[in-house]
Amino acid sequence: MAKVAFIGLGNMGGPMATNLLKAGHDVTAFDLSAAALAQIKAEGAKVADSAREAVAGTDYVISMLPAAKHVIGLYLGEQGIASAISKQALVIDCSTIDAESARTVGIGLAEQGIAFIDAPVSGGVGGAKAGTLTFIVGGASQDFQNAHTVLSNMGKNLFHAGAIGAGQVAKICNNMLLSILMAGTSEALQMGINNGLDPKVLSDIMLKSSGRNWTLELYNPCPGVMDNVPSSKDYQGGFMVDLMAKDLGLALEAANHSGSDTPLGELAHSLYVKHQQAGNGKLDFSSIFKMFAKAD
Amino acid sequence: MAKVAFIGLGNMGGPMATNLLKAGHDVTAFDLSAAALAQIKAEGAKVADSAREAVAGTDYVISMLPAAKHVIGLYLGEQGIASAISKQALVIDCSTIDAESARTVGIGLAEQGIAFIDAPVSGGVGGAKAGTLTFIVGGASQDFQNAHTVLSNMGKNLFHAGAIGAGQVAKICNNMLLSILMAGTSEALQMGINNGLDPKVLSDIMLKSSGRNWTLELYNPCPGVMDNVPSSKDYQGGFMVDLMAKDLGLALEAANHSGSDTPLGELAHSLYVKHQQAGNGKLDFSSIFKMFAKAD
Amino acid sequence: MAKVAFIGLGNMGGPMATNLLKAGHDVTAFDLSAAALAQIKAEGAKVADSAREAVAGTDYVISMLPAAKHVIGLYLGEQGIASAISKQALVIDCSTIDAESARTVGIGLAEQGIAFIDAPVSGGVGGAKAGTLTFIVGGASQDFQNAHTVLSNMGKNLFHAGAIGAGQVAKICNNMLLSILMAGTSEALQMGINNGLDPKVLSDIMLKSSGRNWTLELYNPCPGVMDNVPSSKDYQGGFMVDLMAKDLGLALEAANHSGSDTPLGELAHSLYVKHQQAGNGKLDFSSIFKMFAKAD
Amino acid sequence: MAKVAFIGLGNMGGPMATNLLKAGHDVTAFDLSAAALAQIKAEGAKVADSAREAVAGTDYVISMLPAAKHVIGLYLGEQGIASAISKQALVIDCSTIDAESARTVGIGLAEQGIAFIDAPVSGGVGGAKAGTLTFIVGGASQDFQNAHTVLSNMGKNLFHAGAIGAGQVAKICNNMLLSILMAGTSEALQMGINNGLDPKVLSDIMLKSSGRNWTLELYNPCPGVMDNVPSSKDYQGGFMVDLMAKDLGLALEAANHSGSDTPLGELAHSLYVKHQQAGNGKLDFSSIFKMFAKAD
Repeated sequence: MAKVAFIGLGNMGGPMATNLLKAGHDVTAFDLSAAALAQIKAEGAKVADSAREAVAGTDYVISMLPAAKHVIGLYLGEQGIASAISKQALVIDCSTIDAESARTVGIGLAEQGIAFIDAPVSGGVGGAKAGTLTFIVGGASQDFQNAHTVLSNMGKNLFHAGAIGAGQVAKICNNMLLSILMAGTSEALQMGINNGLDPKVLSDIMLKSSGRNWTLELYNPCPGVMDNVPSSKDYQGGFMVDLMAKDLGLALEAANHSGSDTPLGELAHSLYVKHQQAGNGKLDFSSIFKMFAKAD
Repeated sequence: MAKVAFIGLGNMGGPMATNLLKAGHDVTAFDLSAAALAQIKAEGAKVADSAREAVAGTDYVISMLPAAKHVIGLYLGEQGIASAISKQALVIDCSTIDAESARTVGIGLAEQGIAFIDAPVSGGVGGAKAGTLTFIVGGASQDFQNAHTVLSNMGKNLFHAGAIGAGQVAKICNNMLLSILMAGTSEALQMGINNGLDPKVLSDIMLKSSGRNWTLELYNPCPGVMDNVPSSKDYQGGFMVDLMAKDLGLALEAANHSGSDTPLGELAHSLYVKHQQAGNGKLDFSSIFKMFAKAD
Repeated sequence: MAKVAFIGLGNMGGPMATNLLKAGHDVTAFDLSAAALAQIKAEGAKVADSAREAVAGTDYVISMLPAAKHVIGLYLGEQGIASAISKQALVIDCSTIDAESARTVGIGLAEQGIAFIDAPVSGGVGGAKAGTLTFIVGGASQDFQNAHTVLSNMGKNLFHAGAIGAGQVAKICNNMLLSILMAGTSEALQMGINNGLDPKVLSDIMLKSSGRNWTLELYNPCPGVMDNVPSSKDYQGGFMVDLMAKDLGLALEAANHSGSDTPLGELAHSLYVKHQQAGNGKLDFSSIFKMFAKAD
Repeated sequence: MAKVAFIGLGNMGGPMATNLLKAGHDVTAFDLSAAALAQIKAEGAKVADSAREAVAGTDYVISMLPAAKHVIGLYLGEQGIASAISKQALVIDCSTIDAESARTVGIGLAEQGIAFIDAPVSGGVGGAKAGTLTFIVGGASQDFQNAHTVLSNMGKNLFHAGAIGAGQVAKICNNMLLSILMAGTSEALQMGINNGLDPKVLSDIMLKSSGRNWTLELYNPCPGVMDNVPSSKDYQGGFMVDLMAKDLGLALEAANHSGSDTPLGELAHSLYVKHQQAGNGKLDFSSIFKMFAKAD
């Protein structure tokens, strides 16, 4: 079992650290929230007074933070912890940030002789608790292999997307495409309804035809078509509109910086921002279906 | 075995009629092309001098024509054949036309006591030849059941979408969604490439994630990722850009007439029209990928 | 002064006929509404029991009807009035319909030796009452000149756009562009507001720069920037969202039938349909500004 | 006459500095290009060996640089010149950068007691040479007034948009709207042409109607409609597609950072990136018209 420092015990980080403890790892945790620290301590973790103290002497440093500025600050800031990390350690950042910032952190740590991978996740809070997350990793092959020791206790699917930053790129490409599938499926279903079709019948037909996609398979956005999905529970739970809007913001900046033409992604961004501004930010992202519904 | 009249022996209708003959049906064919008639005659069909003559005394009348005006003209025009069709016959129109026109024909035939279903197909010329088409049917349940006698010899999947016109609606919903999947997948893959990712690796990751869709499964638009798909054969074969542009035109008129909001469908329409106007009309529709490629 | 038949006394047609009477023309009116007929009779018009009766012996036949099917039915239907119109008369249709239908009517009347122009208007009910409408005319030059006798009493600007149907095309091109100006100006102003700018200051700057357009000059969509425009009167009055949505539906069908690529027009159509479905159909079309406002 | 330091003598900065010399100001210039320095010296400027040396003892410091990183580096970098600038001086940055970076520089200089305004320009190289630029200024009112001493010798229109950063925001709002006007006008004109209208006649009609906008007034994108505009000179000269694509990238990042919904701006961004990638980057931005033209 490995010695692991875990920085950031939020909705995602907390259950991820718990799964590492369950697997028998020696976890030292740090978070700015005393309550989060108390809880993880109760589950068997050591707790540290600072990130700097947490990482000392560990084999793996895992971070799960809200935004790029926090990640850059943690590792490379004036109070940054790079100098406290063992040269043998592997740093794994699981935050969803832009690829450029991930590369900046990777370069900064490399200058200090420390290995780094970016490993953003998908699967949400449910996947974090169940230990069934998907990790999409950017970094050297040996570091990807090395990371299995800890990632396999928190997730089910581990993908190696390419060099440092590629994990973030692949995640954002996937999520941009997902938003297009969800909005496109929603408008197709509603057009069918407006023309007198039963959305369940239409869903079944498209599922067996060339319109098949993940949202029709597992996450139908039209209320009543599938049981146990957010659309049949007033769009509660799942992946929030606020988070999809944030990811689409990252996607369009990635597109802009790489000179990529992403018309459908930009339109999906506009639709999700509009949906968010209409007060739906805390609903599941499949609630975009409501935007296409006709007023009675 | 049934007595069948088959009107319209084009690229699709010809092989469909051939499959009815192979199954042992008694087929009487009509087409304006003497060459098409000669060929189907050589395969064992009777040929008629007019559509009117072809339908006399048959159990099924099947039509496969280019556009709504031809279908309306055939059945309801001044020279229309409705009065020549047996009251016991079932009329099956396999053309892809707008739902309103299909309903117009259905109402017109019903006034004469003749049953009608709309049964547009997907699967292309390859599916027509192989007898593996998908039929999406609008009409009464008993007529849908009755149609199995002939449709099952031409296709593999038979779907009942709803009342008359619903077959056209479901097909156009599916194809509109397909165009969104294809264009969205293309721009996501190209954004990955522009950020240094291998399109095969990115495709594999999205295929196992929430970006999964029919195009990634069976029809990857990026050259070299999959064998034996149009993208790896210079976008030859498959489903032409011209046909997708036509279907998207039908989709946006259906949206307009039903007051439906289809922003992604309208954007996909614009992209396919632009692609067509740039001279790519005869390429496979996955060639939309080229629109997003960066100049070197 | 001329003998004029006027068919269709709705919100627009009523005041237009009144202005012809004020100018001294000899007007015979017809409408399905007895109340409308009673009113125009009180203003000095003759009234007829049918459209057929109204047109007999007149120099000009003017129609102002809701949709293409009414116009086609009036002139070319089974009960159509073509045979009752004098061969010396000029038929002027002021309805906003699709260009193809206008051409159909023109051809049908030409077969009977009757001259026709399409002359859709802009300027709204206010312009109809004030006699300041804009007429955009399609038809032969001599017919355009001939029409001045009556059009100049109902409007201020008379444009000759081209052959029959061109009036409808030009109007729909203008209104599609107008919707783009209005939505684009709205999102630019709101982005400025979201970044701390005063919308009046930003409007003044853009008005003197390359962002200048009709909406900034005369019809600013942001409440409080201009007096006496709909945005400063809770978006009451003006040109309704329902009408703009209808015109954009006509525009996208015209685009589809002519193989035109109109991405911004299609997006504006989607925005206006969405806005309409959210319950804003009776507001002025500048209320699209509200769609971009941020929730507090 | 004032003592002015001018940093950045590119296509824009060079002629701007020349106009200050012509007006009699005492200009000390710096640029990394020896050739640019030699030329401005020949026109009467002092030249400095470093930016630091250039600014010593001046009343105004003006910078005109390619991107935000250069501006931030110049004033706030490790080798930054802030400490060399007089506390009485006004710093005027004329570069087009994002508003956040402008605010960062403003705050950094304020900490050193130095006044700052952002003053991006429009009008292009032609305006820079002719001294007819438009300056859109963000900063305190007294600083805006103070800046007239030098700005009025380089430009004709001086706008005060608001606090520091507001100049950049207003410029980007205007240019985003301009791109929408240009693309929207282009697609409307082409739809008219596709329906048989003469683009000059349609332009005249829309110019007198509610479609009126700056592009129809001064910069018609359809070849042959206006003399002496880029569209009638093979789209040479004017404002390059590359620059419009860059400005639209800044606009969408500004939209993203402020949570603004800018669907038409995002679509225009996609159109311009596509147009750029098709090899049109060096053409005038009105060449977007070509994207809508139908293949013969």
